[in-house]
Amino acid sequence: VAEGPQAVREAIRAHHEALTAGRRPVVRELYLTDAAWTRYGQELGLVSGGELPSGHRTGPGFAVHLVTDEVLVALADTVTPQGLLAVCETVDVPLAAVLGRAPLLIAVAAHVRDPGNAGTIVRAADAAGAEAVVLSEASVDVYNPKCVRSTAGSLFHLSVSLGAHLGDAVSALHGAGLTVLAADGAGDTDLDDLQDQAETSAGSAILARPVAWLFGNEAWGLPEDLLSLADAVVRVPVHGRAESLNLATAATVCLYATARAQRRPGGCRTT
Amino acid sequence: VAEGPQAVREAIRAHHEALTAGRRPVVRELYLTDAAWTRYGQELGLVSGGELPSGHRTGPGFAVHLVTDEVLVALADTVTPQGLLAVCETVDVPLAAVLGRAPLLIAVAAHVRDPGNAGTIVRAADAAGAEAVVLSEASVDVYNPKCVRSTAGSLFHLSVSLGAHLGDAVSALHGAGLTVLAADGAGDTDLDDLQDQAETSAGSAILARPVAWLFGNEAWGLPEDLLSLADAVVRVPVHGRAESLNLATAATVCLYATARAQRRPGGCRTT
Repeated sequence: VAEGPQAVREAIRAHHEALTAGRRPVVRELYLTDAAWTRYGQELGLVSGGELPSGHRTGPGFAVHLVTDEVLVALADTVTPQGLLAVCETVDVPLAAVLGRAPLLIAVAAHVRDPGNAGTIVRAADAAGAEAVVLSEASVDVYNPKCVRSTAGSLFHLSVSLGAHLGDAVSALHGAGLTVLAADGAGDTDLDDLQDQAETSAGSAILARPVAWLFGNEAWGLPEDLLSLADAVVRVPVHGRAESLNLATAATVCLYATARAQRRPGGCRTT
Repeated sequence: VAEGPQAVREAIRAHHEALTAGRRPVVRELYLTDAAWTRYGQELGLVSGGELPSGHRTGPGFAVHLVTDEVLVALADTVTPQGLLAVCETVDVPLAAVLGRAPLLIAVAAHVRDPGNAGTIVRAADAAGAEAVVLSEASVDVYNPKCVRSTAGSLFHLSVSLGAHLGDAVSALHGAGLTVLAADGAGDTDLDDLQDQAETSAGSAILARPVAWLFGNEAWGLPEDLLSLADAVVRVPVHGRAESLNLATAATVCLYATARAQRRPGGCRTT
């Protein structure tokens, strides 16, 4: 369920793209109040002339239901869904399909349990230009309403793969030519040193290659056996007295450092 | 109220530092269960020989109360405070006192309303080595339990100043020799360009100077009149299709880019 104008807009956009590309539809049903119809109908492509429908109509490949405020609040997870929500099909794809598209940047969330953290990682990965996010087995359900909200529409922008066994996923990532970096506060490689390396010679720098980042659970991080499978275990430097960054902010720093290195002359996105 | 072992540990550490420096105490009262006493008493410096106190004793400058699980849960904001919490004095200081210490990096949260965002900014600012965080008037109460939790102890690590009028704060920041950068998704200066500039010549680069960052409200950003007072309005580049980053992750990227630039040869932390 995508709630609120931003998430619904991105869902409908993804829906039209999917139909145009001959893929299966994304939006199944749209519920909105009269007020939301008036405010967002034009923008969402539901109405051309601006006239109000009565009760119930069929939109471009999905059903549109006009409902009262009370019904909408009962359907929604949030207290203020701003008058509209869309019931969507799941959008996740198998990891093999993700890797078949030769991705250059992937975020892997390993056993991440907090929906806000998982959603924020999806949003940050999208902003950093990552092609995909992998949520491992035992991670939070990405379709949890709080998680969907935290993605701010990015759930519909990049490929999301669910339920991967982590050992198998690392093998598959390696097989697809990705360097696998594990983020860990106690890692023996400093992210600043990797950025220095990318400044000096992006052509051979780790961060400038196709990279998959592994991000661990909020409380206990990444398991030892997974750290040992990674090509490097990387710490975000802490200059002050904080013990660590929180998961989503640490992930964002790692993803942005990689995005910048990959776009340097000699980096994998420029050659 | 600092809840849980991490926040309580940082509060007690700040308390002892304050007493040693002749400043006023930080911790007023500590409440903990028998189980938490057994588990954390040694680490928190409450017990030297390991013997259990009965009922109530006076610790190093604050009262220690042994309570039942039920009492602790009733006192706490969280469902699982892990057996202990500390009632603390406020720790904020006036902006003039902050600026008197010649800070090199400050985060200003302008009208930030979400306690998780405000706390995460304090934690990220601490990790990035900032000396202070300023929460403007009309921002969330930094002593809100959720905000305190989100700081993960960093509330006790750096200087926090509350309630500033933003226009006056920018004048004071300028007066203290800080370059004021406003973070805004529509800013006309790209953070990547500022980082390029710092790579080329940190000595004259904006990011390598003493900097105060302004971060705006989650929904409507920074007000126009404040943008016009800043020395530059800076956007974090968005490489994918996300509309933006969320507030705390965008702030972290800005703060870390500055931390890195300031530590280059020629930057304000190396000369």
